[in-house]
Amino acid sequence: MQLAGILHRPESEDTAVLADHQVLIRLQTAQDIQSVTLKYADMYLWQAGAPMKTTTMQRGLATQAAQYWTLTVTVPTNRLIYGFQITGNDGKTIGYGDDGLFTDEATQWAITGHYFHLPYLHVSDAELPPAWVKDTVWYQIFPERFANGDQTNDPAKVQPWGQGPVQRDSFYGGDLRGIIDHLDDLADLGINGLYLCPIFTSPSNHKYDTLDHFEIDPHFGTKRDFQELVDAAHDRGMRVMLDAVFNHFGTASPQWQDVVKNGAQSRFADWFHIHDFPVGQDAKTGELNYETFGTAAMMPKLNTQNPAVRDYLIEITSYWLRQLDIDAWRFDVADEVDHGTWRAICAALRAVKPDVYLLGESWHTSASLVGNGQFDAVMNYPLTQPILSLFNQTVTIADYVGKTNLQLCQYRQPNQQVMFNALDTHDTARALTVLQDDPQKVQAALTLMMLLPGAPCLYYGTEAGLAGGPDPDNRRCMPWEPAPKTTAMYPIVQKLVKWRRSQTEFLATSQLSWQIHDGWLQLIRKDATQTVVGSFNLSQHSQTSAVVGKTIVSAGLTGDQLAADGFSLQVLNKR
Amino acid sequence: MQLAGILHRPESEDTAVLADHQVLIRLQTAQDIQSVTLKYADMYLWQAGAPMKTTTMQRGLATQAAQYWTLTVTVPTNRLIYGFQITGNDGKTIGYGDDGLFTDEATQWAITGHYFHLPYLHVSDAELPPAWVKDTVWYQIFPERFANGDQTNDPAKVQPWGQGPVQRDSFYGGDLRGIIDHLDDLADLGINGLYLCPIFTSPSNHKYDTLDHFEIDPHFGTKRDFQELVDAAHDRGMRVMLDAVFNHFGTASPQWQDVVKNGAQSRFADWFHIHDFPVGQDAKTGELNYETFGTAAMMPKLNTQNPAVRDYLIEITSYWLRQLDIDAWRFDVADEVDHGTWRAICAALRAVKPDVYLLGESWHTSASLVGNGQFDAVMNYPLTQPILSLFNQTVTIADYVGKTNLQLCQYRQPNQQVMFNALDTHDTARALTVLQDDPQKVQAALTLMMLLPGAPCLYYGTEAGLAGGPDPDNRRCMPWEPAPKTTAMYPIVQKLVKWRRSQTEFLATSQLSWQIHDGWLQLIRKDATQTVVGSFNLSQHSQTSAVVGKTIVSAGLTGDQLAADGFSLQVLNKR
Repeated sequence: MQLAGILHRPESEDTAVLADHQVLIRLQTAQDIQSVTLKYADMYLWQAGAPMKTTTMQRGLATQAAQYWTLTVTVPTNRLIYGFQITGNDGKTIGYGDDGLFTDEATQWAITGHYFHLPYLHVSDAELPPAWVKDTVWYQIFPERFANGDQTNDPAKVQPWGQGPVQRDSFYGGDLRGIIDHLDDLADLGINGLYLCPIFTSPSNHKYDTLDHFEIDPHFGTKRDFQELVDAAHDRGMRVMLDAVFNHFGTASPQWQDVVKNGAQSRFADWFHIHDFPVGQDAKTGELNYETFGTAAMMPKLNTQNPAVRDYLIEITSYWLRQLDIDAWRFDVADEVDHGTWRAICAALRAVKPDVYLLGESWHTSASLVGNGQFDAVMNYPLTQPILSLFNQTVTIADYVGKTNLQLCQYRQPNQQVMFNALDTHDTARALTVLQDDPQKVQAALTLMMLLPGAPCLYYGTEAGLAGGPDPDNRRCMPWEPAPKTTAMYPIVQKLVKWRRSQTEFLATSQLSWQIHDGWLQLIRKDATQTVVGSFNLSQHSQTSAVVGKTIVSAGLTGDQLAADGFSLQVLNKR
Repeated sequence: MQLAGILHRPESEDTAVLADHQVLIRLQTAQDIQSVTLKYADMYLWQAGAPMKTTTMQRGLATQAAQYWTLTVTVPTNRLIYGFQITGNDGKTIGYGDDGLFTDEATQWAITGHYFHLPYLHVSDAELPPAWVKDTVWYQIFPERFANGDQTNDPAKVQPWGQGPVQRDSFYGGDLRGIIDHLDDLADLGINGLYLCPIFTSPSNHKYDTLDHFEIDPHFGTKRDFQELVDAAHDRGMRVMLDAVFNHFGTASPQWQDVVKNGAQSRFADWFHIHDFPVGQDAKTGELNYETFGTAAMMPKLNTQNPAVRDYLIEITSYWLRQLDIDAWRFDVADEVDHGTWRAICAALRAVKPDVYLLGESWHTSASLVGNGQFDAVMNYPLTQPILSLFNQTVTIADYVGKTNLQLCQYRQPNQQVMFNALDTHDTARALTVLQDDPQKVQAALTLMMLLPGAPCLYYGTEAGLAGGPDPDNRRCMPWEPAPKTTAMYPIVQKLVKWRRSQTEFLATSQLSWQIHDGWLQLIRKDATQTVVGSFNLSQHSQTSAVVGKTIVSAGLTGDQLAADGFSLQVLNKR
């Protein structure tokens, strides 16, 4: 038995309060274990003579080297002590608890000090994410490129819609009116969450270098337009998420400009991390005398530990939540801002709107940003990017599964369900281009993503088969002619979105497992009444999928055969 | 290689920001690894061509099955990506990082996604505990039993000091004046922190059932007396810690009495977890219709999620900090109160006094209570209780070391240094009684505790060789005649306390290791200039300790021989 692989920590991601009196308990072991039994009780009742309960744990996800075991326990008194009785493939059994490993003997199981403790379950500490998010399929809009609904507010040097390769400083005139005009198209697609990249006053097309967080960029429209957009979205059952950058400001921001002008006397001198005045570059070494985002001189890092800065950021984010009734905030470069700031901002926003969804940008596993008074979720690139590697066959099927399961184990189940899953965004090349312009691969990748826990997001244009390499090519104008719904991609994407939304409860609660075959892969979601199977052929020849059921989407499926590179999403035992 | 034993999580206890630009990184492996190398860089500089740094990690503590590896890294830009290059005893090498295990090839080490991220080190997020605590040796006083300095405030049925076996409801007349009178004795002993069990108005002798948190119990004295005590302690360089119970109130509390009187109409009806009115016991089932501490009807559990309750608790704790200038709070049954409440209270108290020490009571490993805006430390029973088992020989030496190392690995190094370590408290039998009334074993156990990380605490009377079984016998009157300093125990305890306080910096920063011998154990603390060795003979015959140096304390040490059951504390290479 690989004893070093046996690991559990109470009140880490190894325990998740799912609801009042209900907690999910998880144990990691190596892959040499045949069964695990959980022994548990209310300590006070047990010490007064009540018996210890004993329940077999379920075999859960397996990573490259580890096996997880899970069990959901009902705790009437909210108090729980528990220990793990672990039997190896070698037939040997040991006990494991708060003070480590012990021999599996009755005298040992009688020692309180051996048990892990969940002293008192408070559902408030579970910080359960807003329930609506796991019902949401997001749609990400880069406003300057989605649709030009009002030509009167176009920037001076606007280019004809869709013309020429996109340049870093191109303007095409997309605006809020364009989004409003197309809300019915988005409703037809089936999405019910709009994620808008920044819309505040800014000189750039991407607007991540905000000048005034309280105003809509005039080329995008007015606050009245935005109010109309939010209301029209809400009328259609769509939530609205805005995007803000609080790690750094641009050098054109009034705060930084005041520092440039007034140096140490500026009232904003403590708003940044400035080592010396006047701010600038050392003539000899070229070194900047202030902290930046990465090495970018144009992006001075905000001093978020300064209470005045925190108050300002809270004021901004509360304003749009309270006055414009938005539903969610996405925070850029969230991983480089201190946790204390996020705790302060998130607490303030939840006080304004208890069911606000708060999302942090991060590119790596980020358990430290989720919960503990911070975000509901982060952008889940570590889960979604390997999907592209799978269909590009730059990762083995087994490695793909191991790494995916590892990511799924980084967050508690309630958070896992609201993670922000996207195959592509304004920061990546488009999936279609990454997948060699093969629309069938994009459809297969979307199918796989729709089956995973988390709230999926489509980057605008996906439904129309829009391609694009890295920034700025990934920000091409949305092709409206011919209409997206006339494209070959559209019906598959629409079907996937609508199916996903019809299966919210099932996908949130069902078990997830994998079947790794030679050249193909099955992802299986299963509960007491239904089984859903996604089958993905990653080889160059047909495979027998041995799954026959109601087919939701398919490509190259013939009977129970998966054609070369084909895929299918099927439902068995439909409840 | 036991791959499932390889584990690291960024921004968990596996990483600790020690100071600006300095982070301690830790990896768990199984015990089949010969070396670990850390590869690390600033991601932005590395992607721009700067080389990856490579440093060998140090072999750290070993638990029953796992081996920890540590390295302190300097991070000039505050940004860090890192991966582990792990070589097994079998000579094979693998890579390990954010997305799991990978082959040890240059092409793999070039992939950003393989690296763990500490995106930006904020020293504020380290929540470094107040620096004074690791310099502190605490002394716990149960005020009703320490000294009667003012007989005019004695309770009605006070017994003669020290007479008869202690009963649950005995009163002996101990008070604040008694503590003030003996501060010079405590200064002579060398301690520099006073931890007082509750002193607020209450009908009991232990006063954990507070009636009025804003008033000193009249049998203990007045607020003026307490102010005098704090000032006199501060004059002697001693800090003062008070004790509060916020998990539950007593049924005699005015809040609960108001609920009893007014039922659902009481303004305190939402201050508790009440399922039905009037509050009480079901006549048939005997079940209470409100939540309690354990199953105790007399202790209704507070509804700390109620903002009015939180505000009240913040008001109480701020008051004593601000008005009476205390230095620390210890919170009873902290593990059963919700984390949101502790985050609110701790933030409020740190705003009043940034270097306040906040300590939670818990009896099990409690990483979830330390940091993340909560406590600096918890009561470290899981570290200290096994010391008694060691000297009682109810645990093997190897198991003792494995379990101790496991506990040491539960907390970040800065928190580990301020954990509250006590061999006994008002809630346990006294160490002397647990250790079969053998003062030499108590001295050995104290010696071992003084060598461990954490702030040690002496329960009043330890220096006088006071014995006592479980509560209430552990709360005997402090024996003042003959004077404690005339007892055999006193000089050893005094020597240990003074030595410990002289070695604060060394004990906070030096490496800790163990040598397990047949029948005896060595604890070794070592830095570049000094080695300190505690040797403990757990057998019935003499052992060769092979340590010759300056002896601080000893029992049975003859040359390099440890007599049967002897111990010694020696310093080599004195700097």
